[in-house]
Amino acid sequence: MGEEKENAEGRVVDISLKDLSKRLEEFARARDWEKYHSPRNLLLAMVGEVGELSEIFQWRGEVDKGLPNWQQSDKEHLGEELSDVLLYLIRLSDICGIDLGDAATKKLVKNAIKYPAKVL
Amino acid sequence: MGEEKENAEGRVVDISLKDLSKRLEEFARARDWEKYHSPRNLLLAMVGEVGELSEIFQWRGEVDKGLPNWQQSDKEHLGEELSDVLLYLIRLSDICGIDLGDAATKKLVKNAIKYPAKVL
Amino acid sequence: MGEEKENAEGRVVDISLKDLSKRLEEFARARDWEKYHSPRNLLLAMVGEVGELSEIFQWRGEVDKGLPNWQQSDKEHLGEELSDVLLYLIRLSDICGIDLGDAATKKLVKNAIKYPAKVL
Amino acid sequence: MGEEKENAEGRVVDISLKDLSKRLEEFARARDWEKYHSPRNLLLAMVGEVGELSEIFQWRGEVDKGLPNWQQSDKEHLGEELSDVLLYLIRLSDICGIDLGDAATKKLVKNAIKYPAKVL
Repeated sequence: MGEEKENAEGRVVDISLKDLSKRLEEFARARDWEKYHSPRNLLLAMVGEVGELSEIFQWRGEVDKGLPNWQQSDKEHLGEELSDVLLYLIRLSDICGIDLGDAATKKLVKNAIKYPAKVL
Repeated sequence: MGEEKENAEGRVVDISLKDLSKRLEEFARARDWEKYHSPRNLLLAMVGEVGELSEIFQWRGEVDKGLPNWQQSDKEHLGEELSDVLLYLIRLSDICGIDLGDAATKKLVKNAIKYPAKVL
Repeated sequence: MGEEKENAEGRVVDISLKDLSKRLEEFARARDWEKYHSPRNLLLAMVGEVGELSEIFQWRGEVDKGLPNWQQSDKEHLGEELSDVLLYLIRLSDICGIDLGDAATKKLVKNAIKYPAKVL
Repeated sequence: MGEEKENAEGRVVDISLKDLSKRLEEFARARDWEKYHSPRNLLLAMVGEVGELSEIFQWRGEVDKGLPNWQQSDKEHLGEELSDVLLYLIRLSDICGIDLGDAATKKLVKNAIKYPAKVL
């Protein structure tokens, strides 16, 4: 994880998918959880987290960009649920042998061809 | 995106969440799609992609790590669906004003406290 | 399925969960699909259909009750996706040995106790 | 709900989608919850319940039909989560003005044409 950049307060400011992937692998190994991390187990765990994320938004009607008027505690809860989806998604990709950063970069190129930008 | 590292073949090898975030922002702006990118629209779009991801696994029974015996085309399809979930997740986080890399890093710390590693 | 009631045009007007359950069982048996109908396969198939349902709503912003201004073809598409979720949900319940109608009736009673009605 | 059949113990044995629909409508009205029951609110609530359903299956690896070796309490929990998905699905259909039983019956016919039964 030598590529991490830190700002003046020592906070990591630009973490890569590979950084997160390595930490998740170490996390699972240190807890002897690798035996539970099969592709479909991780997929269902991710679906569970998508459900928790949806619950945050379920009774709010339309929500404006930037979440004006949300309590700070609700924003923190949201950050945690978004993170849980991300962490299982990265772990699922790894266990499947898919390089997620590489796949996402290629998908962006494919999308740019499929949906050409407007000439402004 | 000056932080990207490239290997000998010029492939991006370690993309950050912020890199992807910037590219998605530019992608939406260049197509005048920002007006569609409300939090709940993006959340439902992500749920749609989670559905497509699940369809890849739905009739296979248990799947082994590393996807032995999968066709290369199925693996590429899987990489695309994993990417679609990731891209909407990153865009949703941005539109909500959540720093996803920062949130995920904090969540890993919180998880490590919640589930202490075994003493080996 | 002798309990079905038909209106003057011969349309089934009040189908039960058990009716649908029986039809799904016959459908699977007639196609030799029972071997695919394991609990987690059916659950993932249902998640896939939830994704397709979400795609119908994803770019619309808030949608009013009764779907005013929706095209008839969009309403029919919606009816199909709602049905797909229902059919996999019923089949999943059956394969798990859960009586869904009975469970739902009990859950309604439990909810009524958990959330007492307002005194009007 | 006059069509309900009861067995010797007075338990409802064959509840229809319309029965459940009516009960859900009365439930919402008695609690002044109708204002929360917009299509996308209900859809996200259903996605939340699909997540809770998935959590029951997430770390189990493949699960056999009939759930042999499951604790009775786990089966009851499963019945509740299946019910929650069903109840929101029915309510979502109603609020959208879709007759779910009718739509599901038509979808079965359409599926039977799309996937002809094997000649045995």
